[in-house]
Amino acid sequence: MTFHISSPDFTFIPRLQAELDQKTKPLQSLGRLESLALQIGLVQNTLKPRIEKPSLLVFAADHGIARQGVSPYPQSVTGAMVRNFSQGGAAINVLTRELGWDLHLINAGTLEPTPWPSVQDRRLGPGTRNMLDEAAMTQDELDKAIHSGAEIVRQLKAQGCNTVAFGEMGIGNSSSAALLIHCLCDIPLQDAVSRGAGCDDMQLLNKKRRLEEALRKHGRITDPMEALRVFGGFELAMIAGAAWGAAEQGMLILVDGLIASAAVLVAAQVHPEIKPYLIFGHRSAADGHAALLKHLDVEPLLDLNMRLGEGTGAALALPLVRAAAAILSEMATFASAEVEGRVNA
Amino acid sequence: MTFHISSPDFTFIPRLQAELDQKTKPLQSLGRLESLALQIGLVQNTLKPRIEKPSLLVFAADHGIARQGVSPYPQSVTGAMVRNFSQGGAAINVLTRELGWDLHLINAGTLEPTPWPSVQDRRLGPGTRNMLDEAAMTQDELDKAIHSGAEIVRQLKAQGCNTVAFGEMGIGNSSSAALLIHCLCDIPLQDAVSRGAGCDDMQLLNKKRRLEEALRKHGRITDPMEALRVFGGFELAMIAGAAWGAAEQGMLILVDGLIASAAVLVAAQVHPEIKPYLIFGHRSAADGHAALLKHLDVEPLLDLNMRLGEGTGAALALPLVRAAAAILSEMATFASAEVEGRVNA
Repeated sequence: MTFHISSPDFTFIPRLQAELDQKTKPLQSLGRLESLALQIGLVQNTLKPRIEKPSLLVFAADHGIARQGVSPYPQSVTGAMVRNFSQGGAAINVLTRELGWDLHLINAGTLEPTPWPSVQDRRLGPGTRNMLDEAAMTQDELDKAIHSGAEIVRQLKAQGCNTVAFGEMGIGNSSSAALLIHCLCDIPLQDAVSRGAGCDDMQLLNKKRRLEEALRKHGRITDPMEALRVFGGFELAMIAGAAWGAAEQGMLILVDGLIASAAVLVAAQVHPEIKPYLIFGHRSAADGHAALLKHLDVEPLLDLNMRLGEGTGAALALPLVRAAAAILSEMATFASAEVEGRVNA
Repeated sequence: MTFHISSPDFTFIPRLQAELDQKTKPLQSLGRLESLALQIGLVQNTLKPRIEKPSLLVFAADHGIARQGVSPYPQSVTGAMVRNFSQGGAAINVLTRELGWDLHLINAGTLEPTPWPSVQDRRLGPGTRNMLDEAAMTQDELDKAIHSGAEIVRQLKAQGCNTVAFGEMGIGNSSSAALLIHCLCDIPLQDAVSRGAGCDDMQLLNKKRRLEEALRKHGRITDPMEALRVFGGFELAMIAGAAWGAAEQGMLILVDGLIASAAVLVAAQVHPEIKPYLIFGHRSAADGHAALLKHLDVEPLLDLNMRLGEGTGAALALPLVRAAAAILSEMATFASAEVEGRVNA
C-alpha cells in the first residue's frame, strides 16, 4: 500500500510566529502552548486553526505470545475489556466523554469475536501467531491491517474530522512494543521491557526470557516493516496504517504512550514525513517509553505517571491542543486591543 | 476577619482508595490522575465527586513600586489589560472559554477606574503605595481586601460553584511575589526574583536593587500577614482572602503560577488547614516558582514552560481535574463490568 504524505509548508512558519508575537502577552510567555499552536497552524496551514470532530480510535487485538506468561492478566481480558468499552465503563470511555472526543472501537483481531454494535469489526483472526514459533503475522495480514487502519481514518476525514488519536487494548502487546523499540531504536532489551499491565518481578524475568527467545529465533530485525510483521500485532499494524493515512490527509495525530508510540515509531521510520503531524500526548511511566521519546527527539505535553494505554494519555492532551489552537485563532493582538507593548520593544 | 476552615475527613481515604482500586484498570495505572481523584473525593467527601460551575477569578491591581522601573511594561498596561479582558481578547478569555470556566473580572485597585460592566468594582485605591517609601497597604486596606476576596467566593458558592481558581494582572506584582517568597520561605532573594513580564538583564539588575532597598527599609518580615501588608498588593490580598473563603466553604482551589502561589503561600502559612483544598495547576517558568512549589512540597499537574499569569496555568489544569473526578465517579469496577482481575491478584 502506497502513501503520499506531503510535508507541510514550512515557509509559513515566520508568518505564524509573527502572529503569535503580536498577541496580548509577553513574548513566548505561553511556552509550550505557543510551539504547539505553531505546529497546529503549520499542519492546517492557517492562522486560524480549528480542531474539528476529534476522534480517538481504540484498536484491540490478541497476541500469540500472551500464552507464554508475559502478562499478569489472562488473554480473555482483551475481549472482556472491549465489552467494557462497548458498555462505556472503561477509563477511555470516561475520558473521551469528559474531554470531547468521539470514541471509535475497532476489533483488529481478538481471540473471540466481539459482536457488539459499537465495535467495528476489522478482525484479522483470533490473535496473532506466537512469535516464539513463527512470525506474528503473514505479509498478507500485515497489508490488510495497514489498509484497514488507513481506510478508517479516511472515512473519518470525509466526515469532517481533522484530529485523531490512537489507543489500544491487547494482553501481550507490551512485548511487541519492547521488541520494536529494542530492534528499531537500538535500545537495550532490558531498558525496553516494561511491566506492562503490572508484572511482578518473577513475571518480568519470564517476559525478558521469552523476548530474548524471540530475538534468538528471528534475529534483531532492523527493517521497520519486517519487525512489525514478525514482532508486532494486528492493532499495532492498524495504528501504523492509520497514522500514515492521517498524515496523508493532513490530520493532526495525538500519540498515546508505550504501545501506540511503538507503532508510530515504525510509521515514522518508514515515512519520516509524518513527523510534523505528530503531537505526543504524554510520557508513560512504562519502562521504555521515555527512552523511545528521547530517541524520537520529542517532548510530550503531559507527564502524569500513567501507564494504562487505551489512548488515555492522548485523550488527556486534547484540551491543550484545543487551547493552543484557540490562542492562535482567537487572542487579540496588541494593536487590536490597543494595549501598549514593551517599553523597550 | 476570622475563618473557620475544617479539615476534610481523612478517615474516608481508605474507602476512596478501595474504590479506585476496583476500577477496570491495572492498579495505580492512572498515576497522578488517581491521587488527584482521591484528593477531590476527599474534599467533597464522596465517591462520586463532581466539578460544578468552575469559576476563575482574575484580580487586577496596580503597585506603587511599578514606577521604579521593575517591569518592562508601563503601569497603564494593567488597566489596558483589564479592558482587554472585558472585551474577551486576552489569553485567559480564550482559555476559560475553551475549557469551560466561568470567568470573573475583579478590579482590586488599578491606577484608573475600569468602568466596564463585566468588571466587578472592588477597587481599594489607585494602586498600592510604593513600598520603598512605606508599607504597600494600611491594615484597613489589607482587611478590606481579604474581606472582598472571601465575600466574592461565598457568593459563587451560593450560586452552586464548588471549584475556583485565581488569576491576577498587575504590573509590578512579581516584585511583591519575590519578596513574599524570600521572606516567608527563606529562599535567597536572587533565587526568588523573576524577569516578570520580561525584564532584560539591566532591568532585572535594577529590580533586584529596588527589592534589596525595600528589604533594607522594612527588614525581612517573617510574619505572613505583615509581609503581605508591607510587600504585597491588593490583588494578592484578595486572593489570600478568596483562598480562605473557598477552603472554609469546602471548595477545590486551583492554584496558578508565581503570583497566585505567593498569595496562597501567605494563606497557607496563616491557615495550614487550607492545604488539602489546593491543587497546583502548573509549574511556572518564572524564576522562584519551582523553589516555592518545592518549599510547599507540592507537585503541579502541568509543566509547559509558561509564565503569563492571568490564571492561565490554573485554567489549563481544569480538564485534568474534571477527568480525575469522572474516573472516580463514572468508571466501571471489575465486578460491575465482569472483567477478570489479575491472575495473581
